[in-house]
Amino acid sequence: MSSFHKFKHFVFGKPIHARHAHHERLSVPFGLAVFASDALSSVAYATEEVLLVLILAGSLAAYGVLPIIAVCLAVLLVIIAFSYYQTIHAYPESGGTYIVSTDNLGPYAGQLAGAAILIDYVLTVAVSISAGAQAVVSLAPQLQPYTVPMACGAVGILCLMNLRGAKESGIVFAIPTYGFVILILILIGKSLFTGITSPAVVPQLPAWDGNQLHTLGGFLLLRAFAASCTALTGTEALADGVKAFKPPESKNASKALVMMVTLLTTMFIGLSWAAWHSGIVPIESGTEGYRTVIAQLAEQQFGPGFMTSAIMIMTAAILFLAANTAYADFPRLASFVARDGYLPRQLGTVGDRLVFQNGIILLSFIAIGLIIKFNADTHSLIPLYALGVFVAFTLSQAGMFRYFRKRRWMVLKRKDLEADDEHPTASPRERNRAARKFAIQSYVSGFGAVVTFCVGIILIYTKWEERIWIVIIAMAILMTIFNLISRYYKSLAKKLTVTRADHLPEIKPTTLLLVPRMHKGILLPIQYAKAMSPDARAIHVALGKESAKRIKEDWNNFGVEMPLIILDSPYRSIIQPILDYVDHVRSMDAKRVVTVIVPQAVPKHWWQGLLHNNAAILLKLALGTRRNVVITNIRYFIEGEQENQ
Amino acid sequence: MSSFHKFKHFVFGKPIHARHAHHERLSVPFGLAVFASDALSSVAYATEEVLLVLILAGSLAAYGVLPIIAVCLAVLLVIIAFSYYQTIHAYPESGGTYIVSTDNLGPYAGQLAGAAILIDYVLTVAVSISAGAQAVVSLAPQLQPYTVPMACGAVGILCLMNLRGAKESGIVFAIPTYGFVILILILIGKSLFTGITSPAVVPQLPAWDGNQLHTLGGFLLLRAFAASCTALTGTEALADGVKAFKPPESKNASKALVMMVTLLTTMFIGLSWAAWHSGIVPIESGTEGYRTVIAQLAEQQFGPGFMTSAIMIMTAAILFLAANTAYADFPRLASFVARDGYLPRQLGTVGDRLVFQNGIILLSFIAIGLIIKFNADTHSLIPLYALGVFVAFTLSQAGMFRYFRKRRWMVLKRKDLEADDEHPTASPRERNRAARKFAIQSYVSGFGAVVTFCVGIILIYTKWEERIWIVIIAMAILMTIFNLISRYYKSLAKKLTVTRADHLPEIKPTTLLLVPRMHKGILLPIQYAKAMSPDARAIHVALGKESAKRIKEDWNNFGVEMPLIILDSPYRSIIQPILDYVDHVRSMDAKRVVTVIVPQAVPKHWWQGLLHNNAAILLKLALGTRRNVVITNIRYFIEGEQENQ
Repeated sequence: MSSFHKFKHFVFGKPIHARHAHHERLSVPFGLAVFASDALSSVAYATEEVLLVLILAGSLAAYGVLPIIAVCLAVLLVIIAFSYYQTIHAYPESGGTYIVSTDNLGPYAGQLAGAAILIDYVLTVAVSISAGAQAVVSLAPQLQPYTVPMACGAVGILCLMNLRGAKESGIVFAIPTYGFVILILILIGKSLFTGITSPAVVPQLPAWDGNQLHTLGGFLLLRAFAASCTALTGTEALADGVKAFKPPESKNASKALVMMVTLLTTMFIGLSWAAWHSGIVPIESGTEGYRTVIAQLAEQQFGPGFMTSAIMIMTAAILFLAANTAYADFPRLASFVARDGYLPRQLGTVGDRLVFQNGIILLSFIAIGLIIKFNADTHSLIPLYALGVFVAFTLSQAGMFRYFRKRRWMVLKRKDLEADDEHPTASPRERNRAARKFAIQSYVSGFGAVVTFCVGIILIYTKWEERIWIVIIAMAILMTIFNLISRYYKSLAKKLTVTRADHLPEIKPTTLLLVPRMHKGILLPIQYAKAMSPDARAIHVALGKESAKRIKEDWNNFGVEMPLIILDSPYRSIIQPILDYVDHVRSMDAKRVVTVIVPQAVPKHWWQGLLHNNAAILLKLALGTRRNVVITNIRYFIEGEQENQ
Repeated sequence: MSSFHKFKHFVFGKPIHARHAHHERLSVPFGLAVFASDALSSVAYATEEVLLVLILAGSLAAYGVLPIIAVCLAVLLVIIAFSYYQTIHAYPESGGTYIVSTDNLGPYAGQLAGAAILIDYVLTVAVSISAGAQAVVSLAPQLQPYTVPMACGAVGILCLMNLRGAKESGIVFAIPTYGFVILILILIGKSLFTGITSPAVVPQLPAWDGNQLHTLGGFLLLRAFAASCTALTGTEALADGVKAFKPPESKNASKALVMMVTLLTTMFIGLSWAAWHSGIVPIESGTEGYRTVIAQLAEQQFGPGFMTSAIMIMTAAILFLAANTAYADFPRLASFVARDGYLPRQLGTVGDRLVFQNGIILLSFIAIGLIIKFNADTHSLIPLYALGVFVAFTLSQAGMFRYFRKRRWMVLKRKDLEADDEHPTASPRERNRAARKFAIQSYVSGFGAVVTFCVGIILIYTKWEERIWIVIIAMAILMTIFNLISRYYKSLAKKLTVTRADHLPEIKPTTLLLVPRMHKGILLPIQYAKAMSPDARAIHVALGKESAKRIKEDWNNFGVEMPLIILDSPYRSIIQPILDYVDHVRSMDAKRVVTVIVPQAVPKHWWQGLLHNNAAILLKLALGTRRNVVITNIRYFIEGEQENQ
């Protein structure tokens, strides 16, 4: 098996995932790189989305709302991050939102949160990879016809990387993250300088969106704001990763949070302003000569040389990294959902390579489906994107609100405080202070819930025509599946419950050892069969007269003390005669449990396995609903090779 | 499992193959239908191939050679059939050519025969189905762009039909076979009548083959003859099926043979003559308005009405049937080859459904590949076709020549005659008579060998430019594979040979029963584990603290007399803790053999299986080269349903 193992190791590697298996704690800069790449990368597409809405206003007046939007965004970021931080503090085990919602708002809220986040992970991959492909196309327009294949290929690479379980270090995150941030800041700086030294360019408004020009009314403003909300996806990652920071954890994480908010808003407002000031308007993707806004801006400022290339490459890199984060989170969340019986139970053992890999393959398939369906076009994908995050935010904040209210009530009513290790004693004064603290925390969470709920409504309202209902339907379908699965498991548990009437059955074991011919590989199985049961018999299915004669001789010559039974097979089947004999043995006594032992060769190379019978598989398939029959493989090794565990 | 079984039965049916499992003997007409359909169907394309060559001559002079070719063909048919009949008589077990060649000419000749016939079965499917699709296209020209998909679809249907194991009766063969023969004879009769009452039409020679007109030289004559040889494919089926006839078998089979030869030559010469006389020339496939020669002739004689449609439909039907015959023969021959260790051994148990099905799927895939590669164009496929048959004919006749010579020599040298039951006593006179008989038989076979060998050379010589070398390369590759596989099995047997130094090892069994929680399904496994070994332990992998606590309580409450071991799983893997524990147990004692028993739920519906863990599969994959570890599944049934064997 060694070459098979080598092959397996080459393809799948060792199971390590940097994001959730940090043995070393992260410093602030590295922590920021690891947990903020997802959020920071979103400026690559969020800016473009906002500009896209604003050009509909068709006048420079729209320019004025950019600071407003940026401020809203920054405030929202801080609210979400802070209130999320509270959550992490109360529920230190990861899997945050889903567990908070389930615990405090009941199973349906939990299911909704789970569905929303799982969908959002898929969209993270689809959106980030599509945006990355668009960045590449901006750099090399001749690749435009290959946008979709490129994006699918990138998902394929991510999938393989994660199947291998590539070991990621902080530095892998730091280079694209800081590279992207620094280059974007330079781009903004240069634009600013050019902007100050030269007058604003009046943009040539293109024939976008059927040239329907709107006045900058409330709806457009909301739409612009909604578009900017995609920049908030990925925020939860930082709060989720507090424990990975060097001590003092929360202080360091807060520093990283402040830095992230600063960088995100700076880049967002800077890019928007620069683009607008330079008369750059988004181009409809699929158009001849398509380039992203960042690409247009970079080319305007630096020409089509090194800097522009560097900016686009770093953009693609950070987006690839952002997509990668979903690969660690998707199987992990699925495992929490599975543990509650809403998804197949085996997904719960995420520590098992194959299970983890199933999650990765599933995620890749759905993401590729979305990319193909939406033509790797971020403009059509992004409207679907942010809702899941806001549903999850709202549920987790609402859950935390209830959690803190309950705590406060418990403290005031002098109820038991044992669940809260921070307040073991309870003098009236301390109790009041505790209650006040819980009250404040509940206000923060409650406010966060209301804000994110409102944003969610705005998203649904403004993006309805951009097919945001697809996400709502997807959530409903996923919740239905959760419930069907849960119902099945519950009815199963009921059926299998042990009652007082149940007792251990009496059994009489019989062992049948399949002997194709006398060889070294069956010496251990002979002993195994004899040890298993006093009624052990060797079985040979004779496809020809010669083989029967030969095995009889060999058997007697070797002197095995076990009856050898020869079964004829007129139709040259190996399975039917065995099944018939098994039925014959079982028919003698209802307590009889028959074990068929099939020696199985383990060859040196995996392809040699194709040359070895494994009757056990055929027997198992043929077994049907026969009860009290067990098929067992005993392996023997053809090459006397080292054990390799 | 019952619904899964129903599904399986619906898709795969019961394993019956009319051609090789006749319980009733066949009368001459039915026998002819069953065994001659392959051969008779070949006039559908053989005629066209011959005409295709003759039009190259570019003059009506070529017309004159048709009778010569027809006579050659008839003589060849009789030689082959008769000498094949001798073979069947000497080797009554089927699998004829391959076994005759191996026995009398050695393993390499056998391998060559096996390779040649396996390749020919694949080509039978590809050619017959392509010709059938062309017949359909001739009837409905609007389907022309879909020729390849239609042909592939037909192979798919054949594949499914044979996976199901459709029960075929004589009547299924009789209708298309006789329908085709009668309609073709009517068509010839009508053409003859028209031909006598009106003068011959001078054909408008098309710009076929780049308009290179040749004079009717020897090469063209040979080519025309070689083209006609495709009509001989399938002849061996009749000789092969002698035993299926009603007694007196050989007399009835001979009758059928005479009828087949008469019908085949009549149809061949009749169609060729009629086509030529009516000025019909073959159309290059892929051309606008493509129709087969038969379609052109039918339309000329009957107009585009009922008769023409009936002729084309029957043509397609008999061709479909001809392709179907390969589906019965391919897995059967593969099983003979596998029994000699030239193909994976498990192919030898052709009585096992899954093995038989693998052969069918393999055959279908290769045939579809050929159809796509050659664009379902019979003109390009047919040159590859006949060689395999002639290689096989030559080898089997040569083998029979040696067989009869040896017999004759043994008789004359007064050697033991015991192998020949016909001549138990041996007076000199009788011996001489026997020797004479063997001599005559050897002449027949030898003559057959020489004739078919010459035809083979003609085929290679005339069709070299039509890529017949592909078949030669394919045979060489197949033979190489046969030899590599054979070498592997031989070295394996050597390695595994039991010597005097080998002895039965001493073992100490330990049984580990995986217990996810206490439920009805594990009651039997508990008893099974205890019966297997005095050292039986229950193992629970705790993914959470609660489950561990609960199982402990339940275990003690039920009062199971077996130690319960709780394994922690910090990384939420179910496999790793078990493997670690297994290694721990094994490390105590080299004689320890550990059996891990995994209870497996058998749900009512197969899709519910997706909701059940089967840790046994994961464990087996993770086992690597650990020795002395056995993983066993014990099934428990969730619904208390009827046993269904």
